[in-house]
Amino acid sequence: MSTPSSDNPTEIKSLQNDRLLRALLREPVDQTPVWVMRQAGRYLPEYRATRSKAGSFLDLCHNPELACEVTMQPLDRFPLDAAILFSDILTVPDAMGLGLYFTEGEGPRFERPVRNEQDIKRLAAPDPETELGYVMDAVRLIRRELNGRVPLIGFSGSPWTLATYMVEGGGAKVFANTKALMYDRPELMHQLLEVLADSVCAYLSAQVAAGAQSLMIFDTWGGMLSARDYQEFSLRYMQKIVAGLPKQAEGRRVPVVVFTKGGGLWLEQIADCGCDAVGLDWTVDIGDARQRIGARVALQGNMDPCVLYASPQRIREEVAYILERYGHGNGHVFNLGHGIHPAINPEHTAALVEAVHELSRPYHQAP
Amino acid sequence: MSTPSSDNPTEIKSLQNDRLLRALLREPVDQTPVWVMRQAGRYLPEYRATRSKAGSFLDLCHNPELACEVTMQPLDRFPLDAAILFSDILTVPDAMGLGLYFTEGEGPRFERPVRNEQDIKRLAAPDPETELGYVMDAVRLIRRELNGRVPLIGFSGSPWTLATYMVEGGGAKVFANTKALMYDRPELMHQLLEVLADSVCAYLSAQVAAGAQSLMIFDTWGGMLSARDYQEFSLRYMQKIVAGLPKQAEGRRVPVVVFTKGGGLWLEQIADCGCDAVGLDWTVDIGDARQRIGARVALQGNMDPCVLYASPQRIREEVAYILERYGHGNGHVFNLGHGIHPAINPEHTAALVEAVHELSRPYHQAP
Repeated sequence: MSTPSSDNPTEIKSLQNDRLLRALLREPVDQTPVWVMRQAGRYLPEYRATRSKAGSFLDLCHNPELACEVTMQPLDRFPLDAAILFSDILTVPDAMGLGLYFTEGEGPRFERPVRNEQDIKRLAAPDPETELGYVMDAVRLIRRELNGRVPLIGFSGSPWTLATYMVEGGGAKVFANTKALMYDRPELMHQLLEVLADSVCAYLSAQVAAGAQSLMIFDTWGGMLSARDYQEFSLRYMQKIVAGLPKQAEGRRVPVVVFTKGGGLWLEQIADCGCDAVGLDWTVDIGDARQRIGARVALQGNMDPCVLYASPQRIREEVAYILERYGHGNGHVFNLGHGIHPAINPEHTAALVEAVHELSRPYHQAP
Repeated sequence: MSTPSSDNPTEIKSLQNDRLLRALLREPVDQTPVWVMRQAGRYLPEYRATRSKAGSFLDLCHNPELACEVTMQPLDRFPLDAAILFSDILTVPDAMGLGLYFTEGEGPRFERPVRNEQDIKRLAAPDPETELGYVMDAVRLIRRELNGRVPLIGFSGSPWTLATYMVEGGGAKVFANTKALMYDRPELMHQLLEVLADSVCAYLSAQVAAGAQSLMIFDTWGGMLSARDYQEFSLRYMQKIVAGLPKQAEGRRVPVVVFTKGGGLWLEQIADCGCDAVGLDWTVDIGDARQRIGARVALQGNMDPCVLYASPQRIREEVAYILERYGHGNGHVFNLGHGIHPAINPEHTAALVEAVHELSRPYHQAP
């Protein structure tokens, strides 16, 4: 269902499927929109083919044509309601000069991690159009290639999440260095987070200028903080970013989703940060979440990614359960509660998408 | 403060410090008791010395004299209010014949993981006094060695947590095999959890018979489940265990603590499982937790283990904050929100213990 809005009929006409944007603004839709975190990824054989053509994972991120190609791949397979820019969450610290690289099996690393006061004071917000131009080129290419099929989601890592990688020099389990800095030198940690918030705000704003129609902030490691520290060191900076983003583009509101993995205890505070929607991991009951914050924001989520290891029939049952828990009415974007795993059978993803569309229709009819 | 109870004056007299037992039952104490998860561990040089004397980590667990030695080590350094049995959470599946071993840097592995229906049907609850006799011997030795200084805590992993290791064949990040089994063959998963619940109940009961004065169930991986699955596959079996445990030993109640890491969303349900106290990880605000469930159970926790990387002054500030959030009155056992890390300076642990005792006294005085 696409109800034309009055202020920009051309754009609305050109966007053939605007379920995602409508659901994120809690407007009526005919069926619940669905997309999948990491939908362009290793579980798809065509992704693996493009990736090996590109060389490394980073080569793929840096090549706008190939980034566009892999962004489109899941849309050619499944009737998804959104495309998401193919990129890495660590492009911003890379553009700050930290030297991002990837090691087989160990994930992202930085050649020059942030170790001390001097390292932090040296950091400056990168100019998105020059220093992250390859991302903006990818956004423009994808928009052209999409040609209005579905909206394009732009994204970034949250300042706290980026800081953990920058201080640890890569992925970590307990974040000893980051937290030692936070607990012993909070003023330095705040300096780091300030420059990251400015950088991310400029980066996401540039993505919107280049054509992103919705935005998502991934706070992958905010859930490793205590309740108080989450407010002070993660949420506060996401709030700052949201406040600085353009509200509209091409005559339409650009909805922002904030997703903190492990943030189920803090949904009320997240819902108050200025975002349009809150991403939920699978540990939260989405019915409870709607009761807590559904009057203020839309919800995105939240099936356990491991359900996709089960049979298509079991996947369908789980989709039915989540739709039932959310209940009738607007404001739900279906997704997994975290990224899809590389070992998943693409046919199981097809079963998920089909089940969401088919089983959600009764929830969007007038009672 | 030790108020003698009427039914067993000899035992009370012999237990010189019963703050832990009193706090777990929400009885008055003079200062908040404190112990530290993994207090007998690699951060202590004397532990590393005993460990290298023993051979492997498993050799240490299997040797009651050495297990007793490392259990006592932190008590000789710090005025802790409890000892906790030194053992591994995987002793029960090991006794079931899965062949536990440890690899350097990769943690626990099983030679014969549980892979299919036959593997599950073959499992039987081990007899604690024969097949886990080395643990019971350790408990008896430690009680003798403690000689009433502080109470001894016995423990086990939760059925769900043990099942994840048994099905994955070791530690895991996403539990793909365990969850595939759970989603596709729930009746088989329930069979596995049944035999584990029976085994753990017998194991913990035997620990009490051997001298454990309090019990703790570690549900390390329950927080990886959805809200509904947590109830069905983890909490339900802990509830069954708690219901089957002896309520008293040596004339005193044996308080049981249930700790689900990442379980902050489900505190109300955990508090209803029959336990005396709920363990909290550091993501939960302990003041909020007390409001939610503090009228029914005691709370144990919950400082971020990473605070111990910071300065003693900063550690003291964090202790003060947590004590203030809990507030006046009974029912708090101070602990970290997860095990202490191997890289922690023991002097920082000393600062923690001292701060808890010193700063908590005003909260236990009549207003």
